[in-house]
Amino acid sequence: MSINIGILGSTGYTGCQLVSLLLNHNSVDIRWLTSEKFRGMKYSEVFPGFAGRIDTECVSVSKLDEQEDVDLVFSCLPNLTSIHFVKKLYDRGIKIIDLSSDLRLKDLELFKNYFNREHPAPGLAGESVYGMPELNRAQIKTARLVANPGCFATTVLLSLAPLLKNGIKAGSIVADVKAPISGAGRAPRLEYHFPETNQNITGDGFEMHIQKIEVEEFFHGNNKIKENIVFRTHRVPVNRGILTTVYYELKEKRSYEELLNYFEEFYRDEKFVRIREKQEVIQLKNILNSNYCDICFDIQDGFLVIESVLDNAVKGASGQAVQNMNIMFDIKEDTGLGAVPVYP
Amino acid sequence: MSINIGILGSTGYTGCQLVSLLLNHNSVDIRWLTSEKFRGMKYSEVFPGFAGRIDTECVSVSKLDEQEDVDLVFSCLPNLTSIHFVKKLYDRGIKIIDLSSDLRLKDLELFKNYFNREHPAPGLAGESVYGMPELNRAQIKTARLVANPGCFATTVLLSLAPLLKNGIKAGSIVADVKAPISGAGRAPRLEYHFPETNQNITGDGFEMHIQKIEVEEFFHGNNKIKENIVFRTHRVPVNRGILTTVYYELKEKRSYEELLNYFEEFYRDEKFVRIREKQEVIQLKNILNSNYCDICFDIQDGFLVIESVLDNAVKGASGQAVQNMNIMFDIKEDTGLGAVPVYP
Amino acid sequence: MSINIGILGSTGYTGCQLVSLLLNHNSVDIRWLTSEKFRGMKYSEVFPGFAGRIDTECVSVSKLDEQEDVDLVFSCLPNLTSIHFVKKLYDRGIKIIDLSSDLRLKDLELFKNYFNREHPAPGLAGESVYGMPELNRAQIKTARLVANPGCFATTVLLSLAPLLKNGIKAGSIVADVKAPISGAGRAPRLEYHFPETNQNITGDGFEMHIQKIEVEEFFHGNNKIKENIVFRTHRVPVNRGILTTVYYELKEKRSYEELLNYFEEFYRDEKFVRIREKQEVIQLKNILNSNYCDICFDIQDGFLVIESVLDNAVKGASGQAVQNMNIMFDIKEDTGLGAVPVYP
Amino acid sequence: MSINIGILGSTGYTGCQLVSLLLNHNSVDIRWLTSEKFRGMKYSEVFPGFAGRIDTECVSVSKLDEQEDVDLVFSCLPNLTSIHFVKKLYDRGIKIIDLSSDLRLKDLELFKNYFNREHPAPGLAGESVYGMPELNRAQIKTARLVANPGCFATTVLLSLAPLLKNGIKAGSIVADVKAPISGAGRAPRLEYHFPETNQNITGDGFEMHIQKIEVEEFFHGNNKIKENIVFRTHRVPVNRGILTTVYYELKEKRSYEELLNYFEEFYRDEKFVRIREKQEVIQLKNILNSNYCDICFDIQDGFLVIESVLDNAVKGASGQAVQNMNIMFDIKEDTGLGAVPVYP
Repeated sequence: MSINIGILGSTGYTGCQLVSLLLNHNSVDIRWLTSEKFRGMKYSEVFPGFAGRIDTECVSVSKLDEQEDVDLVFSCLPNLTSIHFVKKLYDRGIKIIDLSSDLRLKDLELFKNYFNREHPAPGLAGESVYGMPELNRAQIKTARLVANPGCFATTVLLSLAPLLKNGIKAGSIVADVKAPISGAGRAPRLEYHFPETNQNITGDGFEMHIQKIEVEEFFHGNNKIKENIVFRTHRVPVNRGILTTVYYELKEKRSYEELLNYFEEFYRDEKFVRIREKQEVIQLKNILNSNYCDICFDIQDGFLVIESVLDNAVKGASGQAVQNMNIMFDIKEDTGLGAVPVYP
Repeated sequence: MSINIGILGSTGYTGCQLVSLLLNHNSVDIRWLTSEKFRGMKYSEVFPGFAGRIDTECVSVSKLDEQEDVDLVFSCLPNLTSIHFVKKLYDRGIKIIDLSSDLRLKDLELFKNYFNREHPAPGLAGESVYGMPELNRAQIKTARLVANPGCFATTVLLSLAPLLKNGIKAGSIVADVKAPISGAGRAPRLEYHFPETNQNITGDGFEMHIQKIEVEEFFHGNNKIKENIVFRTHRVPVNRGILTTVYYELKEKRSYEELLNYFEEFYRDEKFVRIREKQEVIQLKNILNSNYCDICFDIQDGFLVIESVLDNAVKGASGQAVQNMNIMFDIKEDTGLGAVPVYP
Repeated sequence: MSINIGILGSTGYTGCQLVSLLLNHNSVDIRWLTSEKFRGMKYSEVFPGFAGRIDTECVSVSKLDEQEDVDLVFSCLPNLTSIHFVKKLYDRGIKIIDLSSDLRLKDLELFKNYFNREHPAPGLAGESVYGMPELNRAQIKTARLVANPGCFATTVLLSLAPLLKNGIKAGSIVADVKAPISGAGRAPRLEYHFPETNQNITGDGFEMHIQKIEVEEFFHGNNKIKENIVFRTHRVPVNRGILTTVYYELKEKRSYEELLNYFEEFYRDEKFVRIREKQEVIQLKNILNSNYCDICFDIQDGFLVIESVLDNAVKGASGQAVQNMNIMFDIKEDTGLGAVPVYP
Repeated sequence: MSINIGILGSTGYTGCQLVSLLLNHNSVDIRWLTSEKFRGMKYSEVFPGFAGRIDTECVSVSKLDEQEDVDLVFSCLPNLTSIHFVKKLYDRGIKIIDLSSDLRLKDLELFKNYFNREHPAPGLAGESVYGMPELNRAQIKTARLVANPGCFATTVLLSLAPLLKNGIKAGSIVADVKAPISGAGRAPRLEYHFPETNQNITGDGFEMHIQKIEVEEFFHGNNKIKENIVFRTHRVPVNRGILTTVYYELKEKRSYEELLNYFEEFYRDEKFVRIREKQEVIQLKNILNSNYCDICFDIQDGFLVIESVLDNAVKGASGQAVQNMNIMFDIKEDTGLGAVPVYP
C-alpha cells in the first residue's frame, strides 16, 4: 500500500522534518509540496542535502486547486493561514493533519479572544480531533481531520496526564519551558541572527502564549482541573529540543513511589513515552532526532517537579504527525519513526 | 593607594575572572596566587591570553604560611576546603573575601544538615558578613570577613528584596534557574565534554542545592518570609550568564505599576542593578562580561513572574567580590567594574 | 538473512554511531558489544536514548574468547590496541572491519616511523583491504579484513581521486582540515571541556598526523603522485562534520568545465558522493547525520581549490563501515544508510 | 585632554565594539552617532546593555551637516557608502579613521576592477594612510585620514611581515581563513539564522575577496613579493575571532629557530602582537575581546605554516582603530585597550 501525500508549507523547519521522515517511510508517496518563498524550485535545491532523494518542484499554494487528489495532506502553514486551505481540502474529501494552531481549540471564544477575530471555519473546529495518540488514540483512528498538538503543549500534557487520570489534586501549576531556536521558525530576524542568539538566553516576551490556552482547554474541557497554568517560555541556544519543567503543587501529600507507579502504568504500552527514574539526568541528548518524549520527576517542598524532554520538530510536530498518519491509515504506529537519538 | 592582594585557588574560572578584573583595577597589586593543579607554572602559562600582563608563579596552598602578609585575600577554593585556609588567614589578621559557600550560612544546623558534618570554624560563621552590597552595604564597609554570595542566590535575592521590603505577601515561591556551564567549574568531566553539552539542555539532578538554603536562610533569618522556595536548576549550553525565573504567588492582588515602583525605588541608587520594563526582552546579552544584574517582571494568573540575568562569573562571583573589596577599602564602588556587556 | 555482529570498543562516539545505524539495518543482529569503561552496564544505560531498543550488556574485551563466533566484527578500539584483538578474531576465521589506523598502512616502515614501534601483526597488514568503496569496491567484496579509512583521509582521497585518475599533474598540495570535536573522542579533557571549546577555534598541534601518511601512502603506493601533502587540522566548535580544503597547484592550465567533467564522471554511479557546482555554498548542513560526501571546487591563481564535507561519524567512520559490510555480504550498498541530513 | 568624537554607522557590530571601547577610554567624548536603521533611538535602546552609560540619540547620516565639528570621526559605514561621507568630513577639516574598504587600495585600477566602478574620491585614496601600526606607525602619527585595515588582511600581513622584511623568498602562498559570523555583519539573513549556522561550517563562496587584493597590493606596492595569494575564507559558528593559516612555500631551506628569531625581533616592542612557540596551541581563547594578535608557526614539507588569531571586532577593526587614534593624538598607544581576553 502506498499513501499519496501532499504537503502545504513544506519549506519551513516543520515541513523539512516531515519530508525527511517520509523519505524513509516505506508506505508513502509525496505527490506535491507547496512553498511560497521557494516556489518553482526543486525541493532538493531548497534543502541541498536532499539531492538525489526528492526532486519534486515546490508549487505555490495558490495553485492548490490544480494539485491532484491525494489520500492525506499535512499542513505546515502558519496559524490563521492554514485554516483556509485546510477547509478547501476538507471540502474535497481529503484527510488532513493540520500542524498549525488553527483547529486545536474547541472553544471558539478562546480562539476569538486570543486571535482577536472570529474563527474562519467554526464547523471544522468541531470536526477536528486533537492528535495526541497517548491521550486520544481511538478518535484519531477514525478522524478525517486531525489538529496536531503544539510542541510545548505536548510536553505539558504528557507530564500531567497520569496525575489527572489518577485524581491527584493540584494547587498552583507552573510550566517553565526551555525552548530551542528552530521553534521560532525559519524566517531570519535580528533576535535569532547567530551572533545575537549564540551565548544568549532570552525571555520570550510576557504576552499570553497560544499553547497555554491549548493546554488549559484540554484539561478544562475534560473537567480534569479548573486551575490555570502559569506558563512561561525561554529561548536557549540549541537548534532543537524542549525541556519543560512543570511545578505541580500537591494538595495532599503523596509518595514518589505512588506517583511513579501512576506514570509507569499510564505509559506502559506507549512506544514513544519513557519514564525515567529521578536518579537519571533528564536531557535533550536522549531524545534528539527521535520521536521519544522522556519524563522524570521528584517531590520538593510540597511540589511535584516534573521534567520532560522531546524534539520539537519530531514528537513536538512532524514525528507526532506521522504517528497520527500511521494510526489513521492503520499502519504499525512506529513505521518510519525508528530513528534513535543522535549522539553526539 | 595600592591594596596588596593574595588569591587562593586562582586557576578556576572564578579566579581567572577575578585576576582579569584586578588587572584593570588601578589600586591593587596581586602579590601571590595559589593553585594546586598548576603550581609552579606562571599564571600566564595557565591562561596564555594573559601573557605580558601577569607572570606571577602559582604556589601551592600548602605554602600559604610562607606567603607575605597582604591587605586582602580572595578565596576561590572549593566548598569545605576554603574554610581551613580562610581561618588561618583570619588568625593572621588579614581581611578576606570568601567566594565559597563555607561562611554564607549563619545557622550552623543548616550547614550540618547539608554537608553532613559539623562546621569547621563556627566562630568565623558568626563573624562573617554576607557580601551583597545592595542589601548589606553598611556591614560590608566594616567587615573583616565577607562571605561572597552564590550566583544563583544573588539572582533570587535581588529579585525578591523589593517585594519583601514592601511587605508583599507570598503564597508559593518557585525559582527556576537556567545556568551556564562555567558555573560547574573548570575540571573536565563527561557530562560537560563539548560534544555532550553542545545542543543539550539538562536537569541538574534533584538533590537539594546549597544555594536554596542560602536564599531561604537569608529571608527566614530576616523574618521576611516563612515560605520555602522550590528551587530547580538546569544547564544550558552557554559559557556564562544565568537567567532565573521566580514565580511568586501573590496573596493579594497588586498592580504592575505599584510593583514596578517598588523595584525602581529599591534600586534607584544602585549602579549595578537595572530594572527593565516588561516590554523589553530580558536576555544574557545585556549583561555578559559586566557587573550588571537586570531584572524585569510581569503578572500572570495571580503570580508575579520575575526574571533576572547576571554574569555568574562577574556579578555572580568575582565582580561582586571586587565590589565588596571597593566598599571595604573605601574606594569608589565601581572602580575596575566599568566594562560594558560584550556584543556580540 | 541476518548477519551476526560483534562490536569491539562500542561505547565511544564511533561505536555509538555504528550501533544507531545497525539498529535500523534490516539484516543484522548485534550479538555482543565490548566496553572497558562501561563493562557490566547495559548499552541503554550508557546511552539512555537507546532505552527500549538495545539492552545488551557491555562486556570487557578481556572476555573476547568467551564471546560466540559471529559473521562480522567491527573494531572501534583505539590505535595500537585494536590490532591485538583483530588478530585473535582473524585467527578464529571471523571477518573484520577495523575502524582504527592499525591496518591502513601497507608500508610497515611508515608505521614504524610514526608509532615508533614494529607493527604487531605484519601479516595482517598485507592481508587487509583499504575500505573506501569508491576507490576499492572490487577488493572489498572479497575481503576478510577491511581497514576502514580515516575521516580526514576520506575527504582528501575523494577530493583527489578524479584528478589522479585523469592525470592532472600537481605542484604543491595543501590540505587544510576543519574538524569537529567528536573526532577527538569521548574521553573528557580540559581542552574540550565545553566552556573552553565553545567560542573557540584551535590549531591541532604541529606534530605529524597519521592520516597525512595514510593519504600519501595511498597515492604513492598507486604511483599516482610523488608529492607530499602539507596537512594541517583545526578544531572548530561543532559536534560533527568535517570541511576539508585541498589546495592543488595545477602544473598546467585547466578549465573549470574540464575538471568538473572528470569529477562528475568519476562519481556518476556513486550514491554517496555528490559533486556540487561552485555557485553553491558547500556546508556541513547538507551532509550531517548522513553518509554523503559533498565536493565542490574552483580555480584561483593557478590553484584548484577543492572543498569537501562529510560527517566524520558516518561517511568518515561508521557509515562507511556499514557500507563496507553491505559490500562484503552482498547486500544492497545503501541498506541502513538511508538517512537524509538533519535540518536544522 | 578630551578628544571629541563622531561615529558614522554606529549600530553594527563594529560600531558597537568601538563605543564599548571608547566608554572605557579616559580621553574621549562621544559627541554624536549616526544610524539609519535605528535613527531617533537612544544608543542604550539599541544596545540595552549600555543602559546607564550612553544615552546619546542616533541621528541619520543624512543630517551629517548639522552635526558639530569634532576632532575625529570613525566611519563604520559599509563599503562604497563610507567614502561619500568621509569626503564631506575631510573637506570640513576633520580627522577620520575609515573602517570600510574604501580607502585601503592605492591602485585605483584594482578598486575599479573589483567594484566595477570608478573610485568616487581618487584624491582621498592617495591621501589616506594604511592604519596598521606595526607596519606603518610613523605615517599614522601625522595622518589626517587613516584607512583602517581589514580583519583578514591584518592576520595575513602580520603573519608575513617579518618574512618579507628578512627577505625570505616564497614559492606559493595560500591563506586559509576561519572566520566568525559577526564578521558578516548584523543584518539578519537566512544563512546566518541561528539554526542554520549553529553546527555548521560553510565555504564563503568562491568569488574574489576584497581583502585578498588589499593584502596583495600592500606587498606588491612595497615590492616585497610578486606572488599572488591564494585566499579562501570559511564561516565557523563562533561569534568572534579569526584563525588564519598561511601556507608559505619556502624557496630555500630555513630553520625554525632562524625564523622564530625574525618574528620575535620584528615584534619585540609591539604590545599587541605576541609570538607563540610551536608547542603551544594557538587558539581564539587567548585573544577574544582583547586587542592582541597571537602568531605561531612551524615548518612542514618545505612549507612554513603560520597561524594567527585575533578578535575581528577588536584588533581586526575597532581596537586597531582606537590604537590608530591614540597614535594620531599622541596618547599612550594602549590607552583604552587594556582588556585581557575573556575566559571562559
